[in-house]
Amino acid sequence: MTIFDEELGALRERVLKIGSLVEMAIRDSVKSLVERDSDLARKVIERDHRINALDVEIDEECTRLIALRQPKAKDLRFITTAMKITTDLERMGDLAEDIAERAIELNEEPQLKPYIDIPRMAEITEEMVRESLDAFVRGCSKMPYEVIKRDDEVDNLNAQVFNELLFYMIQDPNTVPRATRISYVSKYLERIADHATNIAEMVIYMCEGKIIRHMKIPEEE
Amino acid sequence: MTIFDEELGALRERVLKIGSLVEMAIRDSVKSLVERDSDLARKVIERDHRINALDVEIDEECTRLIALRQPKAKDLRFITTAMKITTDLERMGDLAEDIAERAIELNEEPQLKPYIDIPRMAEITEEMVRESLDAFVRGCSKMPYEVIKRDDEVDNLNAQVFNELLFYMIQDPNTVPRATRISYVSKYLERIADHATNIAEMVIYMCEGKIIRHMKIPEEE
Repeated sequence: MTIFDEELGALRERVLKIGSLVEMAIRDSVKSLVERDSDLARKVIERDHRINALDVEIDEECTRLIALRQPKAKDLRFITTAMKITTDLERMGDLAEDIAERAIELNEEPQLKPYIDIPRMAEITEEMVRESLDAFVRGCSKMPYEVIKRDDEVDNLNAQVFNELLFYMIQDPNTVPRATRISYVSKYLERIADHATNIAEMVIYMCEGKIIRHMKIPEEE
Repeated sequence: MTIFDEELGALRERVLKIGSLVEMAIRDSVKSLVERDSDLARKVIERDHRINALDVEIDEECTRLIALRQPKAKDLRFITTAMKITTDLERMGDLAEDIAERAIELNEEPQLKPYIDIPRMAEITEEMVRESLDAFVRGCSKMPYEVIKRDDEVDNLNAQVFNELLFYMIQDPNTVPRATRISYVSKYLERIADHATNIAEMVIYMCEGKIIRHMKIPEEE
């Protein structure tokens, strides 16, 4: 095993690390809403700087590796993909922070409705992040096509949440501020799922050179 | 002028080219809504493949340049930034396509209200794209701090549009399907502005090594 192999291994670990921090941020931000736990929401906001710091570290490490090791073909593609993936992960962290902010606001008022679809969306998006990163670090042994398909599930849940909230708002305009905030949370989760989809597409592109992001997904996995 | 300088110049041109295609897509998608011109909307959708193709071309060219020319420091940072910027531009193109799709749907029904804020949002976002790419290709002579500040303007317009639409929906639930679609258009524009902000941040990072995306913006420009 060369030094460069070790460096690539360490890079892989760091990408997994930022991935798990992002998963935790998504999970805790939604938990802080569902369990009305504003302290937890504040923790999510405080912890975001760790995600940001890792993003910068990974970016610098990738640049250093390219300049120093002059990687070719597969290794180079792995490193440039790591840089791009991390950008998406960092943005997911920001969206989890946005969810935590809306949770704090919502926790100050009586709960409008039980949250059913939103925890479901959070669960799916966490899995999407995990599976796409898994495909990235495992070096293309399993393609994350499934992740891309699941994006539709999240889109549908988001539309469903929005329609339900509209019903509340039309029935009683006093619910508008709360319903609007909940609709934002749902929208943030939908965007997190979009970022996970982007990651999956970049991994497939890295592995197969396929321009998946501009193509229809094959039916079989 | 070395071959590598020429290659970097050509890369710069390509990034400007995809940028101008994206600006056109934003402008025409909103025009197709405001002028109720579904043919124009269909053109935006058809033309998106040019943006996608350029995205892939730029990505491959960047990878080729890194592997072949082994750039260091400033040049390497320029190339990796070009790769990331292009990813954001491609996603903006997709959002313009989404706007065009909503425009076609909206054009099939009577117009709910005159569009005032939406064309304004489109104008600001186009300027944001132009200014951030300008800073990128001009090699850091003028920092796109202004772009980042303008993101708030777009966020505020989006909130304003949403509140106005809520008023329609509450007054008359029959307006819900149209109002929802208009709110999506507004939301897409807000996301386009977010991507422009991301580009501006990456350019500042490239130029100054400043981690602007995790910092407060300085007051002076």
